[in-house]
Amino acid sequence: MAPKGILERLNAGEVVIGDGGFVFALEKRGYVKAGPWTPEAAAEDPEAVRQLHREFLRAGSNVMQTFTFYASDDKLENRGNKQTYTGAQINEAACDLAREVANEGDALVAGGVSQTPSYLSCKSEADVKAIFKRQLDVFIKKNVDFLIAEYFEHVEEAVWAVEVLKGTGKPVAASLCIGPEGDMHGVSPGECAVRLVKAGAQIVGVNCHFDPLTSVEAVKMMKAAVEKAGLKAHYMVQPLAYHTPDCNCQGFIDLPEFPFGLEPRILTRWDMHKYAREAYNAGIRFIGGCCGFEPYHIRAVAEELAAERKIVPAGSEKHGMWGAGLEMHTKPWVRARARRDYWENLKPASGRPLCSSMSKPDSWGVTKGHAALMQQKEATTKQQLKELFDRSKSH
Amino acid sequence: MAPKGILERLNAGEVVIGDGGFVFALEKRGYVKAGPWTPEAAAEDPEAVRQLHREFLRAGSNVMQTFTFYASDDKLENRGNKQTYTGAQINEAACDLAREVANEGDALVAGGVSQTPSYLSCKSEADVKAIFKRQLDVFIKKNVDFLIAEYFEHVEEAVWAVEVLKGTGKPVAASLCIGPEGDMHGVSPGECAVRLVKAGAQIVGVNCHFDPLTSVEAVKMMKAAVEKAGLKAHYMVQPLAYHTPDCNCQGFIDLPEFPFGLEPRILTRWDMHKYAREAYNAGIRFIGGCCGFEPYHIRAVAEELAAERKIVPAGSEKHGMWGAGLEMHTKPWVRARARRDYWENLKPASGRPLCSSMSKPDSWGVTKGHAALMQQKEATTKQQLKELFDRSKSH
Amino acid sequence: MAPKGILERLNAGEVVIGDGGFVFALEKRGYVKAGPWTPEAAAEDPEAVRQLHREFLRAGSNVMQTFTFYASDDKLENRGNKQTYTGAQINEAACDLAREVANEGDALVAGGVSQTPSYLSCKSEADVKAIFKRQLDVFIKKNVDFLIAEYFEHVEEAVWAVEVLKGTGKPVAASLCIGPEGDMHGVSPGECAVRLVKAGAQIVGVNCHFDPLTSVEAVKMMKAAVEKAGLKAHYMVQPLAYHTPDCNCQGFIDLPEFPFGLEPRILTRWDMHKYAREAYNAGIRFIGGCCGFEPYHIRAVAEELAAERKIVPAGSEKHGMWGAGLEMHTKPWVRARARRDYWENLKPASGRPLCSSMSKPDSWGVTKGHAALMQQKEATTKQQLKELFDRSKSH
Amino acid sequence: MAPKGILERLNAGEVVIGDGGFVFALEKRGYVKAGPWTPEAAAEDPEAVRQLHREFLRAGSNVMQTFTFYASDDKLENRGNKQTYTGAQINEAACDLAREVANEGDALVAGGVSQTPSYLSCKSEADVKAIFKRQLDVFIKKNVDFLIAEYFEHVEEAVWAVEVLKGTGKPVAASLCIGPEGDMHGVSPGECAVRLVKAGAQIVGVNCHFDPLTSVEAVKMMKAAVEKAGLKAHYMVQPLAYHTPDCNCQGFIDLPEFPFGLEPRILTRWDMHKYAREAYNAGIRFIGGCCGFEPYHIRAVAEELAAERKIVPAGSEKHGMWGAGLEMHTKPWVRARARRDYWENLKPASGRPLCSSMSKPDSWGVTKGHAALMQQKEATTKQQLKELFDRSKSH
Repeated sequence: MAPKGILERLNAGEVVIGDGGFVFALEKRGYVKAGPWTPEAAAEDPEAVRQLHREFLRAGSNVMQTFTFYASDDKLENRGNKQTYTGAQINEAACDLAREVANEGDALVAGGVSQTPSYLSCKSEADVKAIFKRQLDVFIKKNVDFLIAEYFEHVEEAVWAVEVLKGTGKPVAASLCIGPEGDMHGVSPGECAVRLVKAGAQIVGVNCHFDPLTSVEAVKMMKAAVEKAGLKAHYMVQPLAYHTPDCNCQGFIDLPEFPFGLEPRILTRWDMHKYAREAYNAGIRFIGGCCGFEPYHIRAVAEELAAERKIVPAGSEKHGMWGAGLEMHTKPWVRARARRDYWENLKPASGRPLCSSMSKPDSWGVTKGHAALMQQKEATTKQQLKELFDRSKSH
Repeated sequence: MAPKGILERLNAGEVVIGDGGFVFALEKRGYVKAGPWTPEAAAEDPEAVRQLHREFLRAGSNVMQTFTFYASDDKLENRGNKQTYTGAQINEAACDLAREVANEGDALVAGGVSQTPSYLSCKSEADVKAIFKRQLDVFIKKNVDFLIAEYFEHVEEAVWAVEVLKGTGKPVAASLCIGPEGDMHGVSPGECAVRLVKAGAQIVGVNCHFDPLTSVEAVKMMKAAVEKAGLKAHYMVQPLAYHTPDCNCQGFIDLPEFPFGLEPRILTRWDMHKYAREAYNAGIRFIGGCCGFEPYHIRAVAEELAAERKIVPAGSEKHGMWGAGLEMHTKPWVRARARRDYWENLKPASGRPLCSSMSKPDSWGVTKGHAALMQQKEATTKQQLKELFDRSKSH
Repeated sequence: MAPKGILERLNAGEVVIGDGGFVFALEKRGYVKAGPWTPEAAAEDPEAVRQLHREFLRAGSNVMQTFTFYASDDKLENRGNKQTYTGAQINEAACDLAREVANEGDALVAGGVSQTPSYLSCKSEADVKAIFKRQLDVFIKKNVDFLIAEYFEHVEEAVWAVEVLKGTGKPVAASLCIGPEGDMHGVSPGECAVRLVKAGAQIVGVNCHFDPLTSVEAVKMMKAAVEKAGLKAHYMVQPLAYHTPDCNCQGFIDLPEFPFGLEPRILTRWDMHKYAREAYNAGIRFIGGCCGFEPYHIRAVAEELAAERKIVPAGSEKHGMWGAGLEMHTKPWVRARARRDYWENLKPASGRPLCSSMSKPDSWGVTKGHAALMQQKEATTKQQLKELFDRSKSH
Repeated sequence: MAPKGILERLNAGEVVIGDGGFVFALEKRGYVKAGPWTPEAAAEDPEAVRQLHREFLRAGSNVMQTFTFYASDDKLENRGNKQTYTGAQINEAACDLAREVANEGDALVAGGVSQTPSYLSCKSEADVKAIFKRQLDVFIKKNVDFLIAEYFEHVEEAVWAVEVLKGTGKPVAASLCIGPEGDMHGVSPGECAVRLVKAGAQIVGVNCHFDPLTSVEAVKMMKAAVEKAGLKAHYMVQPLAYHTPDCNCQGFIDLPEFPFGLEPRILTRWDMHKYAREAYNAGIRFIGGCCGFEPYHIRAVAEELAAERKIVPAGSEKHGMWGAGLEMHTKPWVRARARRDYWENLKPASGRPLCSSMSKPDSWGVTKGHAALMQQKEATTKQQLKELFDRSKSH
């Protein structure tokens, strides 16, 4: 018997738990190269990818996203590395791994496309759509359960992706890597969402680039605008597992710590409880993670929502709720930490007395006072976005 | 043809790269429970343990430690959980997994014993030795390449362990979880090392409980004392991957963040380069990691010492030295970070403006001025250690 | 020959340097009590008040504000302390001290009124105006050079004050203690400024409650609105000398550190250079300070604008520009700091490893994510302001 | 009737409250130039110096130190500035001001000498002593109550100073600007104290260069050594009002923030309560302050020890104990802070998210791990001190 589909679940008001970000997790495990960020590992090191899928499944994920991020042919060709596997082989291997593990539990397979170099180099709509189509052919052949267009900085390209994905008749989710300031052309989150829903996406939201609470805010803006436009949609959020209160509209890419010095920003499992609750309260029902999320982060999301979902993840067998496992620790003062209020109120120290708590993002070079920030942004965001965009395009 | 033994390598002046800590890594992946910290996963979830071994091997490790931490029968019985597997089964499964992966590369298998509840509850020397003997029987049956007695807070118990391990004729390493202030009875690192060498350990050092630079300092004190005593030994260090400048003689156990709020303290790969260099410069030749070490941390150690070792780890295929892979990043300002001095000088921000940089350790309750600390410690360490020790024993 | 009046100076495009905050400076010197914050010292300890006036004059101030903050009769009666001096005596003494020192240099005397308990306890417009009138009688008798209505949280009361002050024919400045979010009824800075100008104020701006850059932003909003309304005014800013990026619309009153733990937030003289430049660039020409400003802070403002003003303050005799005096320091490495770029780029450490960089304001109890903040505020500020206002009124 | 002498008070077990540092306080007020740090203001701006004396008296000080720091003829000549006043005039003016204010309350006048350029440029003992003698002649003529040799980095020079001062028959105090690591030749605090007592000082201790708790530790080491040597003395401490956990043996001079970026390090009045208690508990009975101390800091010391001294300072009239004055504040949440535990437990934020909590001292260029520090220092302090000393001498 097939598991319930994504829309059946969301329409029934269920909470769907997503998985975490594969490129960052596998980079730390040694199977993805930072910089290109491409997913050859699906074909090259299947056991490593399979294991990560299993860990997320065990942590409570209901969605196994195919490890096909940046796996469009134009991106893979860009890499300059030896290419043992074709794009089709990588995409197929990724589908097989996701399906194999999904079948081990109550999970769906989602085939994913992401933004393309073709769009950034100003190829035509037809050219860009052809790129998405090639990945899509694999997803259809492998019969994924639904489709996600994710990690788009420009809503225009995301709309094109949705238009292509819609052709299949499968449910389509669309997720931009933007925050409350909107996409790289300065289109607001609300307007982005409306366009995506009109293009046919049944689920809209954001992923990557910003920390959980900021991402939830962006999705709230999306929801408000979609509702105001008299449209209907479900909402998803898959944020970073990094605290990024100091980044600008480019997100964490712009922080000096990206991508090899982000450790002090990693969220604890308790931060994840707050995130899950915020997302739930905002009416978001597809709740997952992106870069920085490890299996224990997803487990924390699932544990926070265990009552609502009426299920505890398998992985909780190895995790006492709110630190209860510490009751078996050797040291008495550690046993005393086996309680919720201890962990909810802890403000963890960095152990880095020479480091600050905030960074100044790289690209704009402005020191931002609190209010100064808000003011300046109103005035200048549009122009800065344009400049940044022009800069990006020129490379 | 068998790989070169541990002593052959060290006697030849080679650098031996250890692996990282399994209990913390597998806790985050969902296979170990914080609190008990026992390694049932070796039998229950062999594919997860095997995968982690493989990742460390790929990162450059020359030693696969059997995942037998806290796997003595008295500890396992303590747990109170359902016990699907016997101690012998867990220890045997751990040996098999370590051997399987070691054979895939240039790695040795090390059978490990660690401190026991029997010692803390004041069992006799004979009783405690009998506990070690039972794990050892498995190691001999499975023919591990050498033995490690690690994570001992009391040198007395470590000496007993070494005496048992020596009986096998296999090389013996001994590693205490102490810092420069010495063991929980106040025995200095130097004195500890001398006793361990006299008991028959050919390799001595420290693991866990303190950050890399602090741990290297402790081993330097060991080396100085061993040499002063006219003895000979090799040295090992397997520290935390957490910054712990603020902890007292108990190490990170005592920090308020232990064990679920340590994220902001995680070392970056660039911190690991400094650690590897410091350890090497101190004359330490068995260099690995403990809690918090992920495969990319070990890879950074191996990359820092690539010239000395005349080998780059397999995993470096997916890692440009000093961030070189970023040359293929989409954003121009990220491409500009593909250089050594950028990462060497980065002081990463925590993104946590409500958190401090240091914590006050739990157990002592003293606010410590800088010099105040040094002074007080001289005067009071011994007594405080005694009190803490008494407290621990009573539980 | 009388010095040029305030409007003559501003109309001529001159920069007028204000003084610093007397209540905080004199609290630290032992002459003002935190809590009541009333200025009995003008009568009780005239030499202390005179000395502080002299220090600001020497630092470059062109305005000696009478030390009459909270010196309305209703406020003074509120105090509950022994009352050796009448309100009239205090106000007269304050005028005499300001005049005595103003005459020692190129400075004007400004008589100041501030918000009243009568307004907060909902007295009628006539009652509140009568309170201002009593202070004003003294200012007229003592022939101050111009008048300032400052430290008003509610624009309505400030308008009443301006209406009273206008009756005298003397130039009137009006300064609210608000930030970019507006007054305690939620009236925006722009709207506040328009109302004040229409009421007759020739100079408008903000003082106290927020840090310099935030305050400059609020004044920029005022200027934009006044110009948009086709009105004409001069602009003033007299902010805190504390960094307050973390406070809400109540300003620093709401920070947990107020008023006895603000030390780590004190601006350096180099921060003041940035402030002076920002204020000047924003077209503000009456630039001074409020709580936390010490004479050296005002001197830094005057030094930054020395070229524009074509004058260096007398106090600069004891201060090498950009630390030049350090060339005469004993230690070589301190001599090496006698240069602008050193001090401009220094990020000063707090020496407080157990303290965080930001606080959570007391009254609202919300943890604020970065974007979350902006969003929430839009939605809820009005209601929160109303609640806070109601709360304040009820006391 | 003459007030009781310093030794009478100390012999009777009384607590004597010192004053705060004049050069830093007057630099901020505009009367002293950072770099040379010389006290011409005693003659040039007597009202400013008198006012500061009065504020300290009002805050509870029992000792008015003549403002003669760095007022030796060799230092004054060094300055290169116009010299309107001779050294004798400056020293005499300083004595007159101190005496005038001391007579207004229960305070003694202490004539002070400090380290000389003559010593650093290797002049002979006789030459250096002649320098001290010239200042001493003024002190005798003006009949100060006792003498202090303070701010010496080298115990040798301090001993010479004590030998000169002893000749007058007046009580002599000697105070080095050192921390627990000892003087710039590496002589330990204990050994320094023994030499000073043997040279005739009746009171010994430290001033400047380190934060209060560190300074108290250094004096505790002095006391232990003096007692161990079978000698007798009284003890004094006059530390910085800056948190300096990160400085090395050179003290705050070596921090990157010295002298114009120290603001975030300023102690709160509540820090001063802890300091006063620590000093008292250590058996120190002459308790005052040095650079950074403002009158309210001294008042806090006097308030903490009010019960022991059976007197509250005059300035407390304007200060409710533990913030009690806030009961009269307008805002309800500020009134709620009128209690001891609020202020005792507050960890004040810096409002500086781009700044770290610790700095790396300038001169040594070593990043110091916690334990690393202790270890390295044992090994290298002596040599580093020698090098630094050689460097200083060469300038």
